[in-house]
Amino acid sequence: MPKHSNTLEKLLAAHARKIDQLLQSTIAERAGGDTPKRLCDAMNYAATNGGKRLRPFLVSQTAAMLGRQDQGVLMAGAALECIHSYSLVHDDLPAMDNDDLRRGKPTTHKAYDEATAILVGDALQTLGFELLSDEIIHVDPAKRLILIQELAKASGAAGMVGGQLLDLAAEGRFDGARPVQSEPSIRAMQAMKTGALLRFACVAGAELADASPHDIDTMRQFGEIIGLAFQLADDILDRTGSAASLGKSAGKDEAAGKATLVDFLGLEQAKVHLDKQVKAAHAILDGYGSDADILKQTASFIAHRLS
Amino acid sequence: MPKHSNTLEKLLAAHARKIDQLLQSTIAERAGGDTPKRLCDAMNYAATNGGKRLRPFLVSQTAAMLGRQDQGVLMAGAALECIHSYSLVHDDLPAMDNDDLRRGKPTTHKAYDEATAILVGDALQTLGFELLSDEIIHVDPAKRLILIQELAKASGAAGMVGGQLLDLAAEGRFDGARPVQSEPSIRAMQAMKTGALLRFACVAGAELADASPHDIDTMRQFGEIIGLAFQLADDILDRTGSAASLGKSAGKDEAAGKATLVDFLGLEQAKVHLDKQVKAAHAILDGYGSDADILKQTASFIAHRLS
Repeated sequence: MPKHSNTLEKLLAAHARKIDQLLQSTIAERAGGDTPKRLCDAMNYAATNGGKRLRPFLVSQTAAMLGRQDQGVLMAGAALECIHSYSLVHDDLPAMDNDDLRRGKPTTHKAYDEATAILVGDALQTLGFELLSDEIIHVDPAKRLILIQELAKASGAAGMVGGQLLDLAAEGRFDGARPVQSEPSIRAMQAMKTGALLRFACVAGAELADASPHDIDTMRQFGEIIGLAFQLADDILDRTGSAASLGKSAGKDEAAGKATLVDFLGLEQAKVHLDKQVKAAHAILDGYGSDADILKQTASFIAHRLS
Repeated sequence: MPKHSNTLEKLLAAHARKIDQLLQSTIAERAGGDTPKRLCDAMNYAATNGGKRLRPFLVSQTAAMLGRQDQGVLMAGAALECIHSYSLVHDDLPAMDNDDLRRGKPTTHKAYDEATAILVGDALQTLGFELLSDEIIHVDPAKRLILIQELAKASGAAGMVGGQLLDLAAEGRFDGARPVQSEPSIRAMQAMKTGALLRFACVAGAELADASPHDIDTMRQFGEIIGLAFQLADDILDRTGSAASLGKSAGKDEAAGKATLVDFLGLEQAKVHLDKQVKAAHAILDGYGSDADILKQTASFIAHRLS
């Protein structure tokens, strides 16, 4: 079974550099002469903040496994990263998670100010949808519209944004009422908040490569499972990780009075579950032979990152 | 020259009811079972707040003048209103304009809370792009993509969002530095902040009706001019209107230390300019005969609303 390796980390780093460069050049080009410099600078700051670019990497590797590798695939990944970045900027705001640091650097509202951060998030979301509508993404307009629709569902009220509100609700933030938390309710929140974009990344890669309905469905399942693994790994790290390795404060969920999956499963059982999910993710890709090696390693990386 | 009349106000009110109903049903349908009720409720609160729905009305009337009148046109208007509504919710936030009231009702962050308001704005933006990608908008996918691209340009960093940042900069909000204001700099800010969406409304109506490039260009010019008139009327109202008739605090720009066009033109000259703009807007539509009557009345309404 492919474990993630130094080779994978090198591939990830090289790909992240490409995405960063593409985001920088795209923000500058799309801004046009009228966009205030402060807004461009802050969008760049927020969008190129040293992330691993895992979601664009999944888009690229899925498309590559299914036969497409070009600038359009990278651009679709950049579009997805705009959406992910906007959500981080808004989630960090004082009225939301109130984080001063993100990956060891001041969050956008700390480096600039709250009003600028709100506008940066708004503009990055717009840019994400604008980029997906570009003809470089796919020659067939109908295919671009499928991606726009899927991304809207994954990131909007029924996906990422709805999940963030459920997460805040679990902290008892609204009217002091804290909803009863259970393993299913936590899984449902996580599936919306982080799972939906990871699944979209895999589906988008398959759509971009004009994959068959069967392959698209397989990648949807793969995306679903690595989403679960990503979230479970996060909860395990929140319990065991140091702030340095986590890139954010460990024990934060506990401090906020939020239950995590580890509370329901126990730490050992959570690790067993995680291993099962990685095996399931690998098994789903068995039909693709060695073409699936990098995606399998990526699944392992997601489960064992920073731990 | 058609002045706006009781008939126009009745048309506007009937159209606004249709848009409100469409927004309510669409928010409920698109949300799906997973969207938290609080988010749906707050999106409804923010999106159906008693506005005149001027932008969707312009979409509908432009499309009607050029030969299309159906549910798809209304849906495109609803999509545009989602974008307009999201911008109002975010602009009202404490870190932005810090407004407690909007059209006499508590702003979204007052009726709910800041975190919910941020997420409501985010989800309404997503919904706007999702709705434009729907096949009800236009049978040709390429046409839907044109609308998505135009809306992204009009509303993003090079349009509405960039304009809002310039407006905050004019208040000296960033690093205490207040940029020198001039008539051209105010016009440029206004063209981005409010002009771009009004122009988009007219262009979108023409695109939806499969208008000729000439007609689309004519409607772009019409939209440009009514955008100028809208902004000039706003500045005149800020100087002369009461808080009640304005629906917000009069004299707010002066209090914020912001110059307006009235400062550069003087009140009388500003009114002369406004009349000229209305005449120019009417003249642009002369080739369409009586089919253009409602749009001409709308231009008059925009210039003389609430005054």
